[in-house]
Amino acid sequence: MEMVKIFDTTLRDGEQSPGASMTIEEKIKVARQLEKLKVDIIEAGFAAASPGDFEAINNIAKEVKNSTVCSLARAVEKDIKAAADAIAPAPLKRIHTFIATSPIHMEYKLRMSPDEVIKRAVDAVKYARSFVEDVEFSCEDAGRSEMSFLKEIIAAVIEAGAKTINIPDTVGYRFPTEMGAMIKELVDYFPKDVIFSVHCHNDLGLATANSLYSVLNGARQVECTINGLGERAGNAALEEIVMAIKVRRDLFEGTDTRIETKEIYPTSRLVASVTGIEPQPNKAIVGKNAFAHESGIHQDGVLKHKETYEIMSAESIGLDVKDTIVLGKHSGRHAFSKKLEALGFKLNQEELDEAFMKFKKLADKKKEVYDEDIIAILNDTMDSTPKTYELISLQLSDCSDGMPSAAAKIKFEDKVYVDAAIGEGTIDAVFKVIDRISGINGKLMDYKVEAVTEGKDALAKVMVKVVFDEDKPAVMGHGLSIDTMLASARAYINALNNYVHMKDLLQKKISYKDSI
Amino acid sequence: MEMVKIFDTTLRDGEQSPGASMTIEEKIKVARQLEKLKVDIIEAGFAAASPGDFEAINNIAKEVKNSTVCSLARAVEKDIKAAADAIAPAPLKRIHTFIATSPIHMEYKLRMSPDEVIKRAVDAVKYARSFVEDVEFSCEDAGRSEMSFLKEIIAAVIEAGAKTINIPDTVGYRFPTEMGAMIKELVDYFPKDVIFSVHCHNDLGLATANSLYSVLNGARQVECTINGLGERAGNAALEEIVMAIKVRRDLFEGTDTRIETKEIYPTSRLVASVTGIEPQPNKAIVGKNAFAHESGIHQDGVLKHKETYEIMSAESIGLDVKDTIVLGKHSGRHAFSKKLEALGFKLNQEELDEAFMKFKKLADKKKEVYDEDIIAILNDTMDSTPKTYELISLQLSDCSDGMPSAAAKIKFEDKVYVDAAIGEGTIDAVFKVIDRISGINGKLMDYKVEAVTEGKDALAKVMVKVVFDEDKPAVMGHGLSIDTMLASARAYINALNNYVHMKDLLQKKISYKDSI
Repeated sequence: MEMVKIFDTTLRDGEQSPGASMTIEEKIKVARQLEKLKVDIIEAGFAAASPGDFEAINNIAKEVKNSTVCSLARAVEKDIKAAADAIAPAPLKRIHTFIATSPIHMEYKLRMSPDEVIKRAVDAVKYARSFVEDVEFSCEDAGRSEMSFLKEIIAAVIEAGAKTINIPDTVGYRFPTEMGAMIKELVDYFPKDVIFSVHCHNDLGLATANSLYSVLNGARQVECTINGLGERAGNAALEEIVMAIKVRRDLFEGTDTRIETKEIYPTSRLVASVTGIEPQPNKAIVGKNAFAHESGIHQDGVLKHKETYEIMSAESIGLDVKDTIVLGKHSGRHAFSKKLEALGFKLNQEELDEAFMKFKKLADKKKEVYDEDIIAILNDTMDSTPKTYELISLQLSDCSDGMPSAAAKIKFEDKVYVDAAIGEGTIDAVFKVIDRISGINGKLMDYKVEAVTEGKDALAKVMVKVVFDEDKPAVMGHGLSIDTMLASARAYINALNNYVHMKDLLQKKISYKDSI
Repeated sequence: MEMVKIFDTTLRDGEQSPGASMTIEEKIKVARQLEKLKVDIIEAGFAAASPGDFEAINNIAKEVKNSTVCSLARAVEKDIKAAADAIAPAPLKRIHTFIATSPIHMEYKLRMSPDEVIKRAVDAVKYARSFVEDVEFSCEDAGRSEMSFLKEIIAAVIEAGAKTINIPDTVGYRFPTEMGAMIKELVDYFPKDVIFSVHCHNDLGLATANSLYSVLNGARQVECTINGLGERAGNAALEEIVMAIKVRRDLFEGTDTRIETKEIYPTSRLVASVTGIEPQPNKAIVGKNAFAHESGIHQDGVLKHKETYEIMSAESIGLDVKDTIVLGKHSGRHAFSKKLEALGFKLNQEELDEAFMKFKKLADKKKEVYDEDIIAILNDTMDSTPKTYELISLQLSDCSDGMPSAAAKIKFEDKVYVDAAIGEGTIDAVFKVIDRISGINGKLMDYKVEAVTEGKDALAKVMVKVVFDEDKPAVMGHGLSIDTMLASARAYINALNNYVHMKDLLQKKISYKDSI
C-alpha cells in the first residue's frame, strides 16, 4: 500500500481566514486532536509572523510526538531561523519555505527576475537544511507558472536538499484534469523519491476534486484543512479528500491515508468550537445534515435497504448515532459516566465532578438531557483558561422604550466587586457592567447565540469575539446556560479571561522578540 | 454561443434539506428573485407532496413569466395530474417525472423488474405530454445504473415525448471524469436535439466538478441550488457552476449561461434569510470571506496588482464593495433613499416611510449605521406577513438563581392583551408569555441570534423556528432590534403570524385535497 501524506494546515492557512484566529491554548488543543486523527504533518503556524505564532508552534513542538510539526517560512533567513527555533523541541520536524514562481507574482509582488527567484529559493532551502533534515519547498501560484520554469526551480531546490515539492493552486483557478496533468508531468520528469504535494484553494468550489486528481496522477502529499477553513473560500477539506479516497478505493487502488477516520467528526467539532466558524449544515461529510434524510422518498429507501442512499456510514467518521440513551434528573453518576465514555470523553476526577454538578443543575430545569447538552457541558467544563474573573451573579431588567440595565457581582483576585450599567439593549448593558468592573473596555466584533437542542428550555450556547486591545488579536469567549443573558455574560467573561491569559503568556516570552 | 440551461431546484431539492422548509410566501419571494437571476427553469416543488407544496407551485406559476415553472412528479398518474394542475397558469411550464434505474433501487425500493420500470416511465411521460409540451425525465440513481439499460429506457421515453433527459448522481458517488464519460457516451449515442441534464449531489464534495465535467462533455442543462442547499450534503451550487464557466471561458469556449451574475449575491442572501441556513464564511463565491483578504502577504499582493489574487471581482456577483458611505443620525431622507438605490432595493412609498422611521430610531441609538444594518431593516420592513398579533411592549427581569419573568402587551384584532409568565431563562419567559396571550403553544425547534455588525450596540438579528401544530410544518420567524430580548419576542410573534397566515391560505383551498 502506497501512502498519501495528509498535511494539515488548519493552524496556519486555516487560521489566516478572517475571524478564525485562535489563542495559543486553543491551537495546542487542536494540535493534540490532529495527532489523534493521525495526520502526517501539522503545519502549526508561521513562526516569524508574530510572537504569538512562534509561541504556539513552540508549544505544539513540545507536545506532539507522532505527527511531524512544521512551520511556514518565507524564503528569507529571519523567517527560516524563527521556524527552526520554534520547531526545535519536536521529535519529527519540518521547515516549509516558499516563493512565488508565476510571472505575474514575480513581476508585481516580488519585483525579482526569475534567476533571482531561483537563487533565493536555493539559499533558503540550504539554510533550512542546516537546521532540519525535512525541508518542503512550495512554488507559490504554481497554477499560473510556466512549466519550464517550474522544472528549473524544482531541480535546483531538490539539489539544495528539499524533500517535498508543493504545487499550490493559490488562487483556486485550476480544473481537476489540469492539476492532474501538471502533477503527472512533474512526477514523470523527476526521480521517484521526490514527493510531490498539492495545496488547492476552493474559489470555484473545485479544491477537493483538484486534490483528488493530483493524487490519481502521482501526488503523494495533500495539504488541506479541517472543515475546509482557509483564506477566501478556503482550502481543500481534509474530511472530503480522506473519505473520497476511502469510498472510491476502486479508483485509488493501492493508495490510502493513515487517517483515523473515526476522529474526523470530533476534530471538526473542536475546530468549529474554537474558531466559532460553523460548517454549513450541507457541508459534505461533517455538516449537520450530511447524514440526515428528510424526504419521505429517501427515508423509505433507507429503511428498505441501507445502501440505497448511503455510500459511507456515519460511524466511519466518528458520528455515532446508535447510542440514544437520554438522561434525565434521576440519572445518577454511573449513567452519566457511561454516557461520557460512549461520547468519547476522558475526564479526570475534578473535571468529572464539575461536569456532573452542571449536569444535575441542568437536569433540574430541563426534562430531557440530550447528548448535545452533555457535549456542550463538557466543552464548557474542559475549558482550561484560568478563571481570573468569575461571575457570581447577574441581575437585569428591561422594558421596551425603557432603560435596559444590568447589575453584576464579579470575583477578581479574591475580592468581590459589584456595579451596574445601563445600555442600548440588554446585551449592551450586560457587557458594559462587566467592562466597568474590570476597567478594560472591550470592542464586540461578533456575537452569536445558538440553541443546543430543541425546546424553549434548551441550553443557549453563546459565542463572542472581542478586541480588548487594538494591538492584539480578537479573543473568543464561550458561555452556556439555559438563560441566554447569563450565557452571554459568561461568554464575555470567558473572553476577558482568555485575553488576560494570552497577555500573560506573551509577556513571559519577551526575550524571543529580540532574536528575529 | 451554445447555452447551458440552469435548472434551479432550491425550492424543491433545496427545501427538502432538514430545517430548510419555507412558507408559501417565502417561496414566491425566492421564485421572483430566481426569475431576476434569469434561471431557465425553476423547479418550484413537488405538487403531490402536500397541499402547501401545491399552493406554492400554483402561486409561482401565476407570478413568474420569464422562467419555466416546473413541478416534480413520480412516475404515477396522481403525481403528474397534480403537477399539471399546479403549473397550469404559467406561460412557460414543465413536468419533471422520474423513476429509479439502478439495479439496487429497482430491486429494493421499487420492487419492479427492468421492463416494468420502462413501461411505467413511458406511460408517465405520455401522460405528462397530454398536459404540456415540455417534459423532463430523470433516471434516478443513474450513477449506479447500467449503461445498456440507461440507453434502453432513455430511447423509450424520448419516443414517448420527453425533451430533456436528466442523469442524476443521486448518492454523490461519482468522480468528474466518470460523469463526463457517461454524459459523452449518451450525448454521442442519441440525436442532437435531446438535451442531457445532470443533477449532482455533494456527498464527497465533488458536485460542482461533476457538473462542470458533464458540461464539458455535452450536457446542456445543469440542476443546481442556491448556496448548494439540498438533501444531506446538498446539490451542486448554482453560483459555483455559473462562475466557473465564466472564469474559465477558455475551457468552455462557445458555451455560456443566461444567468445575470450580479443577482447571485442578492439571491444567496435572500435564500439564507428565508431558510435560516447561512453559507459558511469559507463557502465559495457567496461566503462572507470569499472575497476577503486577511493575511498581510496577500493584502500586499492585492494592493500591488489586483489580479495577483483575484480571479473574479466581487462586483461580478453583485457584491458591491465600493459604496461605503456610512449613514448616521444626521442623514436625511435623501441620503437614505440614495443608499437604498445603491443597495438595489425598490420600495413603495409606504415601505419607504416605514423603513426611514426605523432607520431614524436606530440612528438615535447607534453611532454609525452600516449597509448591513440597512439591509436588515429593509428585509424586516418588506416582510409581507399580515401582522395578526402585534407586540406593543415587553418588560422583563432576570436574576441569576432568581425567577426570570416577562410581561408583554400584545394587540390582536383591535384589542390589547397583557399578561406575564416566568420561565427557566429569559427567552423561555418571553416565549411563554406570548403563548399565554395567543393561547397557542409553540414548540421551539431552533433559535439563533447574530449581530448584524460589530459593536456592543449592534443590531441583533434573531431567527426562530417553531412548530405550533404537530401536523403542520415548522414556521420561521425573524426579529430585529438593538435589544436581543425585544428582537427575540418579535421573531417569535413573526413566526406566530406566519403560522396563522399559512393556516388561512391552506383552509381557503380545501377543494384541492379532493382532486388527488
